[in-house]
Amino acid sequence: MKVINLHDLDGTDNDVDHGNWRSRRFVLARDGVGFSFHDTVLRAGTETEMWYANHIECVYVYAGKGTLVNRETGEEHPLAPGTMYLLDGNERHTVRVEEDIHCACVFNPPVTGREVHDEHGVYPLLTEETSPA
Amino acid sequence: MKVINLHDLDGTDNDVDHGNWRSRRFVLARDGVGFSFHDTVLRAGTETEMWYANHIECVYVYAGKGTLVNRETGEEHPLAPGTMYLLDGNERHTVRVEEDIHCACVFNPPVTGREVHDEHGVYPLLTEETSPA
Repeated sequence: MKVINLHDLDGTDNDVDHGNWRSRRFVLARDGVGFSFHDTVLRAGTETEMWYANHIECVYVYAGKGTLVNRETGEEHPLAPGTMYLLDGNERHTVRVEEDIHCACVFNPPVTGREVHDEHGVYPLLTEETSPA
Repeated sequence: MKVINLHDLDGTDNDVDHGNWRSRRFVLARDGVGFSFHDTVLRAGTETEMWYANHIECVYVYAGKGTLVNRETGEEHPLAPGTMYLLDGNERHTVRVEEDIHCACVFNPPVTGREVHDEHGVYPLLTEETSPA
């Protein structure tokens, strides 16, 4: 059993800030449970293009307000507390944020914690065995 | 891409109420993404013994207040917004609830949606292939 408070992660290697967003990772590939689990804040006033070409992601908004754009179809979805979106088709998508969005995120395969979005907004597929130290 | 609001699940087969708790399931085994994802409310004043002998569970509290007891060790942990607990050793545990706890839950293997806690508080391991209709 592991019990971790969000603020226990502040300033650690599991606290990743990319400007538009900050992600604190509770569970990573090295935990060996088959998924990773993060708390992510998307900052008000930002718009971020993302594309998880190698991962399935589930996002659950528990605070904040914004819009999710499916760039494959142009469709827009309001984001508010209680909205879940599942990227089960590696969809290119954009999140526009009106009020700081706080969300719980699940990735499969699990993120190692060393990925960064590349120029396409893509997380590379890293595994515990192959990822750089 | 799937986008679902919590209240879209109200009163559906994905809305399961067992008295002490209510679980609304956004993502289940049939979604084929390798995990299931639920929003669960544990009701104030209740105490529930649980044991996921066949599943890893990650729980993230985003509202409410209570106590998690690891029944294997007797250790107690406060539960409040921002607390994550990962049951990576199939630990028998109890949750005592002071104020309604709202949490996001991830299960691996994914729950099919047809499990119920048995007399030991255990979810049986069901798969999409073997579970009853």
